[in-house]
Amino acid sequence: MRVGGTPYRSIFLDEDAWGVRVVDQTVLPHRFQLLRLESADDVVRAIRSMVVRGAPLIGAAAAYGVALAVRADPSDASLEDTLERLAATRPTAVNLRWALHRMDEVARDLPPELRADACYREAASLCDEDVEVNRAIGGHGLAILHELAVGRPLNVLTHCNAGWLATVDWGTATAPMYRAHDDGLDIHVWVDETRPRLQGAALTAWELGQHGVPHTLIPDSAAAHLMSKGEVDVVIVGTDRTTALGDVANKIGTYPLALAAADNGVPFYVAAPSPSIDWQTEDASRIPIEQRDSDEVISVRGLGPDDAVGVVRIAPEQTQAVNYGFDVTPRHLVTGLITERGVCDASGEGLRRLFPEGESAPGSEAS
Amino acid sequence: MRVGGTPYRSIFLDEDAWGVRVVDQTVLPHRFQLLRLESADDVVRAIRSMVVRGAPLIGAAAAYGVALAVRADPSDASLEDTLERLAATRPTAVNLRWALHRMDEVARDLPPELRADACYREAASLCDEDVEVNRAIGGHGLAILHELAVGRPLNVLTHCNAGWLATVDWGTATAPMYRAHDDGLDIHVWVDETRPRLQGAALTAWELGQHGVPHTLIPDSAAAHLMSKGEVDVVIVGTDRTTALGDVANKIGTYPLALAAADNGVPFYVAAPSPSIDWQTEDASRIPIEQRDSDEVISVRGLGPDDAVGVVRIAPEQTQAVNYGFDVTPRHLVTGLITERGVCDASGEGLRRLFPEGESAPGSEAS
Repeated sequence: MRVGGTPYRSIFLDEDAWGVRVVDQTVLPHRFQLLRLESADDVVRAIRSMVVRGAPLIGAAAAYGVALAVRADPSDASLEDTLERLAATRPTAVNLRWALHRMDEVARDLPPELRADACYREAASLCDEDVEVNRAIGGHGLAILHELAVGRPLNVLTHCNAGWLATVDWGTATAPMYRAHDDGLDIHVWVDETRPRLQGAALTAWELGQHGVPHTLIPDSAAAHLMSKGEVDVVIVGTDRTTALGDVANKIGTYPLALAAADNGVPFYVAAPSPSIDWQTEDASRIPIEQRDSDEVISVRGLGPDDAVGVVRIAPEQTQAVNYGFDVTPRHLVTGLITERGVCDASGEGLRRLFPEGESAPGSEAS
Repeated sequence: MRVGGTPYRSIFLDEDAWGVRVVDQTVLPHRFQLLRLESADDVVRAIRSMVVRGAPLIGAAAAYGVALAVRADPSDASLEDTLERLAATRPTAVNLRWALHRMDEVARDLPPELRADACYREAASLCDEDVEVNRAIGGHGLAILHELAVGRPLNVLTHCNAGWLATVDWGTATAPMYRAHDDGLDIHVWVDETRPRLQGAALTAWELGQHGVPHTLIPDSAAAHLMSKGEVDVVIVGTDRTTALGDVANKIGTYPLALAAADNGVPFYVAAPSPSIDWQTEDASRIPIEQRDSDEVISVRGLGPDDAVGVVRIAPEQTQAVNYGFDVTPRHLVTGLITERGVCDASGEGLRRLFPEGESAPGSEAS
């Protein structure tokens, strides 16, 4: 999408055709800064430190991580070690495992000297496909928004950043919003700030603002009150992993948002590209929920009065905190899953209707 | 409660017996600092800037505000003007109106020269009564906690700060926790950080820590996930205004917390001292919900690396935000109201059983 009028992807090959450029998401919204990644180590660090984040973008970055590693050392040992180190960076997102599986499939049967080229091509395809998947999700979501339109600005609420910054372009949850806005539909987006890392305040507000989509920032816990006042027409969120039965793991805070939507009769949609569907897992309680550093809760990053990005501590010095990255929204709270093949019920039947190939669909490790 | 081993109230008369000392809650937890208030203007500023906050403490501070005003100028005009200005400081808390009504009742029929003494006495009584009310709530809540105790640390979750800092002493929601801890019951408190002003992180974590009660800080939106994992045994929150039918206005984020508790079968109690019960209002939608400055959402206050309390901006420069102070939890989501007279169902019948005098109970403007 556009940044200061210029179209960008969140990840792309540098001019020398081997280094990988990404937007540094840890300094947004205060600085728009591109970083160059030159090795799998660089990619591991970028994923761990959340320079790149968002399930689809993590998958894309990991794919390029494999390409960078194989370029430096195309041996089996290097390939296996890289796949393992990248897989360990974030446990919840299923796209990561999916992307690594694709890279492994492409590389492992090739003679080492052919691996680098093939991996770069595969990573580029994976990125292009992500863009197309999101554009398609945008189209299906746009139809929903048109149906809900009521002759006043349509109020869409979203959580975290399932925006273009979380993908290669368009975003998953935001794709319908961008397409609606570009289509002339009068929409306004409520942006959950999304504690603790504030991806809503820092990223979603920024990218919507750069693209000109009207929006208002709210504390996460205000969403339920807005719904009770009739000020939310629809919720659209992303997902880091949706089970084969339609239960949705997504950023912490999604589950209470779905409870509030259900209590107030607000449609609750999940934008779920097929690489985020975990065809292997039916029991959502088996999804590993990442626990992150408690410092993310105790300290808040932002722009200080000296125009420098810094952190302030919000709690007493010895305070302990826990920091779960995700929660699980049970499928009965989800109005529909918006996939690249259309919208379905959040259920095994719904998913199988759109993806009859089931376990061999793109999100499956076994594919 | 104790601060560094010394017992404190959140508001008390200074040694000269006319100035009023309060804990400056805007610099906690980083500084423990007492401020001296010498006029109704000082009190208005302290309430507006949230130097003092919490429904019961706002009532107590307002009572002393009237005493300070009448000491300076005991005329009818001064009394009326002061009552009006203090009433306008915070719209949602009903204790404020209740405390001002009490002061008016005491002062208005007295000759001006007797008003100051009477007002100081009344403010002191109101403070002492608040302490007794909270101690009683603590006793009734303690019985609930003893019943729930399960041979491992009992996990109590609370939102915002309905602690001793929000009252004169003990707190409302925290009184059962302090009494349980003092009683040797093994409890652990999950503290919602409570965006946007972070009263949980800054105040509740601090006061529990000073008193030695084990606790862990969480982002507000993580509470539902903890409940789904069985890690919350009971929720206890405060209230700024509970209607005659038992609907509960409290800090923004209380309503989604109650939804999560209901969805997970976690008992959800509201500590409701009778001065916070609005006997005049049955329809909760008529409770005015305060909207505060959007800067509280966009900027976060904390301790910087230079050991100075400062703010950082978390969103892009032009971002708009809305900042509702409170939400309403419908009575059907509330397991019980813990009042100073015992625990009752959140219903008109429940409240009338404990307060048969109804409209002439302490919380009534008409009393």
